[in-house]
Amino acid sequence: MASVGIIGGAGYTGSELLRIALAHPELEVLAVTSRQDVGKEVSEVLPLPPGVCALRFVAPDDASLNECDLVFLATPNGVAMDLAPRFLDASIKVVDLSADFRFKDVALWQRWYGQAHRAPELNAEAVYGLPELFGDQIKDCRLVANPGCYPTAASLALAPLLSSGAIEKTVIVNAASGVSGAGKGAAENKLFGEVSESFKAYGLNGHRHQPEIAQILGGVTDGSVSVSFIPHLLPMFRGILASIYVTSTGPEDLNEVLADYYGNASFIKLCAAGTSPDTRSVRGSNFCSMSATKVQERQWVVISAIDNLVKGAAGQAVQNANLMFGLNETAGLDMLPFAP
Amino acid sequence: MASVGIIGGAGYTGSELLRIALAHPELEVLAVTSRQDVGKEVSEVLPLPPGVCALRFVAPDDASLNECDLVFLATPNGVAMDLAPRFLDASIKVVDLSADFRFKDVALWQRWYGQAHRAPELNAEAVYGLPELFGDQIKDCRLVANPGCYPTAASLALAPLLSSGAIEKTVIVNAASGVSGAGKGAAENKLFGEVSESFKAYGLNGHRHQPEIAQILGGVTDGSVSVSFIPHLLPMFRGILASIYVTSTGPEDLNEVLADYYGNASFIKLCAAGTSPDTRSVRGSNFCSMSATKVQERQWVVISAIDNLVKGAAGQAVQNANLMFGLNETAGLDMLPFAP
Amino acid sequence: MASVGIIGGAGYTGSELLRIALAHPELEVLAVTSRQDVGKEVSEVLPLPPGVCALRFVAPDDASLNECDLVFLATPNGVAMDLAPRFLDASIKVVDLSADFRFKDVALWQRWYGQAHRAPELNAEAVYGLPELFGDQIKDCRLVANPGCYPTAASLALAPLLSSGAIEKTVIVNAASGVSGAGKGAAENKLFGEVSESFKAYGLNGHRHQPEIAQILGGVTDGSVSVSFIPHLLPMFRGILASIYVTSTGPEDLNEVLADYYGNASFIKLCAAGTSPDTRSVRGSNFCSMSATKVQERQWVVISAIDNLVKGAAGQAVQNANLMFGLNETAGLDMLPFAP
Amino acid sequence: MASVGIIGGAGYTGSELLRIALAHPELEVLAVTSRQDVGKEVSEVLPLPPGVCALRFVAPDDASLNECDLVFLATPNGVAMDLAPRFLDASIKVVDLSADFRFKDVALWQRWYGQAHRAPELNAEAVYGLPELFGDQIKDCRLVANPGCYPTAASLALAPLLSSGAIEKTVIVNAASGVSGAGKGAAENKLFGEVSESFKAYGLNGHRHQPEIAQILGGVTDGSVSVSFIPHLLPMFRGILASIYVTSTGPEDLNEVLADYYGNASFIKLCAAGTSPDTRSVRGSNFCSMSATKVQERQWVVISAIDNLVKGAAGQAVQNANLMFGLNETAGLDMLPFAP
Repeated sequence: MASVGIIGGAGYTGSELLRIALAHPELEVLAVTSRQDVGKEVSEVLPLPPGVCALRFVAPDDASLNECDLVFLATPNGVAMDLAPRFLDASIKVVDLSADFRFKDVALWQRWYGQAHRAPELNAEAVYGLPELFGDQIKDCRLVANPGCYPTAASLALAPLLSSGAIEKTVIVNAASGVSGAGKGAAENKLFGEVSESFKAYGLNGHRHQPEIAQILGGVTDGSVSVSFIPHLLPMFRGILASIYVTSTGPEDLNEVLADYYGNASFIKLCAAGTSPDTRSVRGSNFCSMSATKVQERQWVVISAIDNLVKGAAGQAVQNANLMFGLNETAGLDMLPFAP
Repeated sequence: MASVGIIGGAGYTGSELLRIALAHPELEVLAVTSRQDVGKEVSEVLPLPPGVCALRFVAPDDASLNECDLVFLATPNGVAMDLAPRFLDASIKVVDLSADFRFKDVALWQRWYGQAHRAPELNAEAVYGLPELFGDQIKDCRLVANPGCYPTAASLALAPLLSSGAIEKTVIVNAASGVSGAGKGAAENKLFGEVSESFKAYGLNGHRHQPEIAQILGGVTDGSVSVSFIPHLLPMFRGILASIYVTSTGPEDLNEVLADYYGNASFIKLCAAGTSPDTRSVRGSNFCSMSATKVQERQWVVISAIDNLVKGAAGQAVQNANLMFGLNETAGLDMLPFAP
Repeated sequence: MASVGIIGGAGYTGSELLRIALAHPELEVLAVTSRQDVGKEVSEVLPLPPGVCALRFVAPDDASLNECDLVFLATPNGVAMDLAPRFLDASIKVVDLSADFRFKDVALWQRWYGQAHRAPELNAEAVYGLPELFGDQIKDCRLVANPGCYPTAASLALAPLLSSGAIEKTVIVNAASGVSGAGKGAAENKLFGEVSESFKAYGLNGHRHQPEIAQILGGVTDGSVSVSFIPHLLPMFRGILASIYVTSTGPEDLNEVLADYYGNASFIKLCAAGTSPDTRSVRGSNFCSMSATKVQERQWVVISAIDNLVKGAAGQAVQNANLMFGLNETAGLDMLPFAP
Repeated sequence: MASVGIIGGAGYTGSELLRIALAHPELEVLAVTSRQDVGKEVSEVLPLPPGVCALRFVAPDDASLNECDLVFLATPNGVAMDLAPRFLDASIKVVDLSADFRFKDVALWQRWYGQAHRAPELNAEAVYGLPELFGDQIKDCRLVANPGCYPTAASLALAPLLSSGAIEKTVIVNAASGVSGAGKGAAENKLFGEVSESFKAYGLNGHRHQPEIAQILGGVTDGSVSVSFIPHLLPMFRGILASIYVTSTGPEDLNEVLADYYGNASFIKLCAAGTSPDTRSVRGSNFCSMSATKVQERQWVVISAIDNLVKGAAGQAVQNANLMFGLNETAGLDMLPFAP
C-alpha cells in the first residue's frame, strides 16, 4: 500500500480524487486538506456513507502529510509552486493538478496566468502527465504536471495524427465542457439558473488551454502547430467533447492511424467512423472515447470525449500515481461508466 | 385580421406556432389540425389557460381550412407536397415548415429525403423564407419554404460574409441544438434519460441540412461553397448555437461586414467581438444573435444563436406570413426573450 | 399610461418584473435600479434585444423615481421598510415584493426575520396582495405587501376550503420549488453542480413562509390553522408545486368548493380530480392551476401549481398594480404558458 | 464464484444490474438477455469499455442460462410468473425485480395489475426482498420478490416506527422519483422535452405501489395501516425522496427509534433531525439515507432517500443474491455515491 495525501480535497476535483483513492486497492489516503473545513469530518462535508472514511480535514501544513509517499495538489493555479518544493525536498512525490508546472516555457505561463512563477526550475523537471504519450517518463519522475481537461481531450486525439504526419499542422479544436470544469466556488455564472437551458462559447479572446494544447502538439511534431481553440459551456455537469477539424495529408483512414498508435492502450476506446462518442458513455470512467469521420475531401472531424473530472483531472492523476508507484496503470481505475 | 390555419398543431413546432398566432394582433386562427387529436379541445391537449382558444382539433381535410387566407404546414417531410396544391388552388397562401419545397434541385432533395417528389413544379415557385435575405421575394409570393433551423443559424451568419467576399468559400459549421429540433414523437434517443447529462455529435455521415446550407450560400455568392457541417445534440430543450470557422480574405473586421449588411434588420442582434451569444438570450424570441471574433491570423469564428422553435421554425414562419400579408414584419413577434 | 419604477431590477424577480412591465400596454417603466449596475444600459445587463429598453440602471435615490406613479420594491428583506415611507410620502404607490409588510404581527415578523422593524405602522396599513382573496382592499390601498411564492400556491388552494368549512383546520403543505426562488446571488448551494440531478427538503427546522401561510389561513377562518409546511428544492428553474393533504369535514367534492369560490377568477385554472397540474403548464404565465383528489376516506390531496417568478412574485405584483391603478386585472398579463 | 444470468439486460434496471454484477468480486455473469438485441455484443449496445464484457445478448430460452446458480428477472410485470418456475425447477435461484411475486394476496395483485396470475403458488413461497426487514428469510429462500422502488424508500423509514408503536397507523407518503423509474421504453411523456423543467404528481387515482407499501407495513404491525401515497415525477434521472408525514404516539425522538432498529445495518445512513437527505448523496450507491424531524406537536416528517435504480432495484437485487449465496451482504456493493 502506498500512502497519499490530497491538498484541496473539498472541491469537485479533490473530492473526485478522494472518491477514487478511497476505493483504490493499493492506495491509502493519509490526509486530506481543506482550509475552510479544517477539523470537520470528511464524511460530513462530502457525501460519503458511514464507515468509508474516518479522516478529518487538516490544514495544508499538517504533519500527517509528511508521512505520505505522494501528494496530489488539487489547488488553484499559483499555489502548487509554493507547496511542491516542500514535498519534493522531503522525498514525497507530487502530482500537481493545477497548471503551475505544465509549461516548459515559464515566460509563456507567466503571461497567460498573470503572475510570477516562484519555482521555475521545477517546470524543467516536471513531466507532463499524459500517460498515453509520456508513460515512460512518468514512471521515473517525482513531479507530474497533470494536464488540463481540454488539452487531454484534444491531445489524445491529435498527437497520433500529427506525429505520424497524417494531418496538416493547422487544426481547429471546437470543444464543450460541463460546468464542473469551472470548480465549486460560488459565482453567478455557474448558478443553475444561468447554466441550465443555455449554451454559449467562452474564452473567445484567448483561453489558457490553447497554449497548453499548442505546446504538447508542437512537441510531438517537428515544429509548431496552429491551434484554433474555442471552448463552450454545456448545461450539464460532467464531460468534455472535442470536435476537431483537421485536413488529411493523404488517403489514409485516420481511424487506422489512431488504432495503430493506441494498440492496447488501457483507457482509449476507439469508435467507428460515422459514430460519435458521447460524454455519457465515459462519465465516471477514466476512458477517452474517439472516432474520426471524413466530412469533405481531405476534411475530417475527429471527436474525442472524456469525463473532465476523471480522465481530465482526478482519474488521470491516479493513473499517473500508479505509474510513479510501479503499479498497474489501471489499478483503482476500473470503474465502469455511470451511464446514463 | 388575416385568418390562418395550422396543419400539424400538436407537435413542438405546431404548438409554438399556435402560441405565437393566438397572441398575434393581426392574425385569427381559424383551424388547427392534429390527426391523433381530432375532436379534442385544443386547450385540453396543449397547456393553454381557459378562455384563450375555443377551437377543437380538426382533420387536415376539414372545411374550415378553406376559409383561411393562409395555412402553415407543420407536417413531417413528404406531406406538404400533397397538401400545398389544394390550398394554392383555392388561393390560400402557404408557409411550409417542412423541407418539401426548400430545394431548387429536386433530384438533390429526392436523394437526401429518400422519396419521390410529387409536386416538383412548386419547388421552382417556392421562395426560401429567410426574410433577412429574401424579404422582397417573400412579399410577393404565395408559397414560402420555411428554412431549416440549422440553415437559418448558419446562413444568417455566413450570407453577409460570403456575398461581400470577406471570407473564403470553404466554411466549417459546427452547430449544436436542443432536443426540441427532433420533434415530439416518442423515440428512445429523445428520452430524458438519454439526453440529459450528455453531449454528442450526430449526422456524421451526412445531415440533410448540409445541402440546404450549401444551396443558400451558393446562391448568395457566384459559385459553390464547401460546407463542412457537424450538428450536435445538447442536453436542453430550445436553442441552436452555430460556431462557424471561416478564413478572411482581407484585413476587414467581419463584425463590420455583418453590421453593414444588417443595418436595421428587425431580428438581428449583433454582439461585440470576443463575446458569445448564448442561446438563452434569444430563447422564446425571434432574434438571431451573432458575433465574429478573430482567433488566429485570418482565422475567425462567427457565432450565431437562435431559438430553433422560433426564429428556426414557428417565429420565422409568422415573420414570412407577415410579409406575405403586407403587415409589419415584427407584428406578433415582439415577445421578449424568456431568460433565464 | 401609468409610470412605474423598479427597485432591484437585476435579480430574477426584478428582471421578470421588467420583462412583464415593458410589454404591458398600460405601464411605462421610468426607472430601474441596480446598485451594482448603476450607469450600465439595462439591455446590456439583461438579455433584451436592441430597441426594447433605452434605460440605464440608476441608484435607488435617483430623482427619476419621484416621477413614478408606483414603484415595485424587489429588494431583499429589510430594505423596503426604509424605502417605502419615502415613496408613500411623495404619494407614490408601492408594491413591495419582500416580506417586510406581510405580517400584521410585527413581533412575529421580527422573530422570523431576525431584525427590528423600522416602519411597523405600515404593516397595519399594508394590504396582503393576493387579489383572488383581497382584491377589493387592494383596489383602494397605496401599499401592497406582495405575497411569498409558497404562500401564494398554498393559500389559493386552501383559503376556499377552509373558509367554507369543507376541511379541518389541520393541513400539511408539502411543496417544491425551482431554484429561482432563491434568487440570483452567488452561493455554492445554488450552483448547477449542486442543484441538478438532486432533490431534497430544506427549512426543516422552520421556514419563514410557514407563519405567513398560517396568518392568511387563520384570517379566512375563525381561528388558527395548524400548518405543517415542508419545502423542497427541485432541479429546475421555475415553478412551485404544492401537494396539500387535508381532511374533509363532509361528503362534498372539494373541486366543487374550489369552483364555487373562484367562479370566473382570471388567473385560476381548475383541473379535474385525479389529474395533476404540472408546473410547466403555468410556466411564464400568471395562472395558478389546481385540482383536488380524494385519496382515502375523508383524506384529500389538493395540488396547486404556479410559476414562482410570475404568479408567485412579479406577475402577481403587476396584477396588484393593475388593481391599484383601476386597470383591468389582466392587463399585460395575458402571456401564454411557455411550455415546454 | 457464483454464476448469474440477467433476463432483460438492456433496460435501465437490467443494465444497472449488469454494471454492478460485472464489478462484483464474487459473481460471474454467464448470460444476459435482450429480445431485441439477440446476437449483438453487450458492450456494443451498452456503454461498456473494451475488455469488460465479452458476452453477446441471448434470448431468454438460451441454454447458457441453465448453467447459472441464480437468475435476475428484470422483465416487465407479468413475465416472471412464466419464467420463474422453469429456473426454480432446475434448482436455479431467482431474484425477480418485477411485481409478480410481491403480493401475498394474489387477488389483490390481479386487481392492481389487471391480469390473471399464472403461478400463484409461488407468491406464497417468495420472500419479499427487503434485507433490512427480512434478511433471515432471504438467506434461506430460493425465490426473492425484489421490492418496488417507492415501497423500499417508504418501508425502510416506516417499518421501524410502526413496529415499535412509536407512530399512529395512519401515514402520508409524499414521494418523488427521477424518470428512470419509468424505464427505457419510448413514450412521449418521458421525452426530455416533457420531463425537463417540470414537476407534477401522478397516479392520483391509485398507484400500484400503494397496496405494496400497505402490505409490508401491515405485516410489521398487528393490523392494517392507512397509507396515503402520492408519487411525483422529478426532472432528473435517478433518485427517490419520500417525505413521510406521521403522528407520534409519545414523546420519543423518532430518530432514536430508527437508530435502535438499524444498529449497524450496512446500507442505512441516518442523518440528524432538521437535515434532509438528498438524492444526490446516495446516487449510484446502495444506501438509504433518512432523518426524522418534528414539525408540529406530535407531527413529524420522516425523509428517506435512495437511488431508485440501486437500492430501489438492481443494488437491492444483488444484496438479496449475496444473502442467498451466503456472501457478505455488501459484496460488490461498496461503490461510493456518485456525487455530484
